[in-house]
Amino acid sequence: MYYGGIEAGGTKFVCAVGNEQVNIIEKVSIPTTTPTETLNQVFHFFEKYALKSIGIGSFGPIDLNEKSPTFGYLTTTPRKGWENFNLLGAFKERYTMPISLTTDVNAAAYGEYIRGYKGSIDSCLYLTVGTGIGGGFIKHGDIVQGYGHPEMGHILIQKHPKDHYPVCCAFHPNCLEGMASGSSMEERYNKKAYEFDRDSEVWELEAHYLAQAIVNYTLIVRPDKIILGGGVMKQEQLFPLIREEFKVLMGDFVETPFLEEYIVGPKLGDNAGIVGCLTLASELV
Amino acid sequence: MYYGGIEAGGTKFVCAVGNEQVNIIEKVSIPTTTPTETLNQVFHFFEKYALKSIGIGSFGPIDLNEKSPTFGYLTTTPRKGWENFNLLGAFKERYTMPISLTTDVNAAAYGEYIRGYKGSIDSCLYLTVGTGIGGGFIKHGDIVQGYGHPEMGHILIQKHPKDHYPVCCAFHPNCLEGMASGSSMEERYNKKAYEFDRDSEVWELEAHYLAQAIVNYTLIVRPDKIILGGGVMKQEQLFPLIREEFKVLMGDFVETPFLEEYIVGPKLGDNAGIVGCLTLASELV
Ligand SMILES: Nc1ncnc2c1ncn2[C@@H]1O[C@H](COP(=O)(O)OP(=O)(O)O)[C@@H](O)[C@H]1O
Ligand SMILES: Nc1ncnc2c1ncn2[C@@H]1O[C@H](COP(=O)(O)OP(=O)(O)O)[C@@H](O)[C@H]1O
Ligand SMILES: [Zn+2]
Ligand SMILES: [Zn+2]
Repeated sequence: MYYGGIEAGGTKFVCAVGNEQVNIIEKVSIPTTTPTETLNQVFHFFEKYALKSIGIGSFGPIDLNEKSPTFGYLTTTPRKGWENFNLLGAFKERYTMPISLTTDVNAAAYGEYIRGYKGSIDSCLYLTVGTGIGGGFIKHGDIVQGYGHPEMGHILIQKHPKDHYPVCCAFHPNCLEGMASGSSMEERYNKKAYEFDRDSEVWELEAHYLAQAIVNYTLIVRPDKIILGGGVMKQEQLFPLIREEFKVLMGDFVETPFLEEYIVGPKLGDNAGIVGCLTLASELV
Repeated sequence: MYYGGIEAGGTKFVCAVGNEQVNIIEKVSIPTTTPTETLNQVFHFFEKYALKSIGIGSFGPIDLNEKSPTFGYLTTTPRKGWENFNLLGAFKERYTMPISLTTDVNAAAYGEYIRGYKGSIDSCLYLTVGTGIGGGFIKHGDIVQGYGHPEMGHILIQKHPKDHYPVCCAFHPNCLEGMASGSSMEERYNKKAYEFDRDSEVWELEAHYLAQAIVNYTLIVRPDKIILGGGVMKQEQLFPLIREEFKVLMGDFVETPFLEEYIVGPKLGDNAGIVGCLTLASELV
């Protein structure tokens, strides 16, 4: 028995096949070009397996409201050629097996909840700090979302008085993604995020912004764990800086687990998303 | 068959008895003085009824972690005489019937979800804007909380450039409660919140702060409804101001229900909390 998992991103589609134990037995990365071209390669990859079900974790924004006429469509994505594309529909046309769809970050959160930090937590919030910033929240095994999926990367926070660079979000004057995502760093400083020295002041600002957001997530949903993944978090010096800043901003106001166990990296590393997709697939059967 | 409900507040304990249909048949308000005095009056009120169960919605912070040795204790409350008081323990000592405990705002959120806006929503977030600011979030019938109960009144937001008054929270430099609660208004402007004219500029600032918070709640949990209650929200002119400001700050970024149906007052009015307590009691039997 095999499960299919697809982490559909704006740069690449990571596809994997899992066995009965939901362990990955084959994985490929397919560049995101046009929908037809990319999906044909995806379909081709899965051809040699008799899949039972598929789990998709997609980039967004994507319509996840089952009652909506555009359920399963990518909506206003800036990725050319994919605006208003019926992603779920394309899979339903090709396959008759059960298919589950959620966001890439919900899938990663789910992967970490079920497999990464398995058994040690009842809730977790996963935040990816990459090209953009996005998050998912799992509570007691459920992906928490309502009228649509979360967009917690865009919460409004306060600009640091020492920060004189413009905020780079087309929608918001002062949002987290516009100040702390990898692409906003590039746009603001005209330099790749990975080109800054480990001890550059930009990491202090980065930690300050992420800590502000984490204070708010904590006060609103009180997760057992906050998991930070994505390219920017490869800067490991960020973790202690964020924990320190969190402590200062939270002001000892609510209890949290020990910060070293509370604000952490993904246990599954870059596999969090694809493992989440496979797990969601396995639960359909 | 009767249920007991107790909305335990820092100023008063509202106690009610509900019948089988969870309709209120008697209700009293008991001033909050010392634990012994107040609870004796509470116990006395319930004496003439053969209750099946009790639901308590309490002011906080209160330890709701069932695994904690201080489960059911009020913790660091500023209310004199009630710090570290074992509220749940006092009821368990008196009664052998099942007792459910949550926060006052979780109870109000639950009341509005189950009874107020019954059937029309799958999730709602209730925010009380009174002496303090607090909130609860219900999703698919569950009260969402994790390591502890939410404290969403204290999220960090941005001070308005036109606002030159100090922020009044002992814990946070820039939190919602410190800028927008009734008591912070009094402390900041040295005037009761209800003494300002309906068209005073303070309501614009108030709407701005609440809108910022509502943008963040929306992006993080995407509720079907945001319900605003509490003394300060008696200023009905706030609702359209908040909706306008929400629109500006959100920048058309995610879909929400029509704002007139999204940002609303409590359908149960001041009974939201006590109805929630009675409903929680009824579910224990
Ligand atoms: N070692 C690194 N240090 C800092 N930033 C990095 C590093 N590696 C990648 N990034 C940044 O992370 C972003 C890409 O994030 P990633 O999570 O890999 O992809 P995506 O978000 O597109 O799925 C880019 O902005 C890149 O500059
Ligand atoms: N009509 C009103 N307009 C503005 N503020 C009001 C009004 N009524 C009460 N308040 C304010 O609301 C706060 C009390 O909130 P309330 O919800 O009644 O009680 P509590 O939060 O203590 O349970 C006080 O700060 C009071 O000044
Ligand atoms: Zn934004
Ligand atoms: Zn505060």
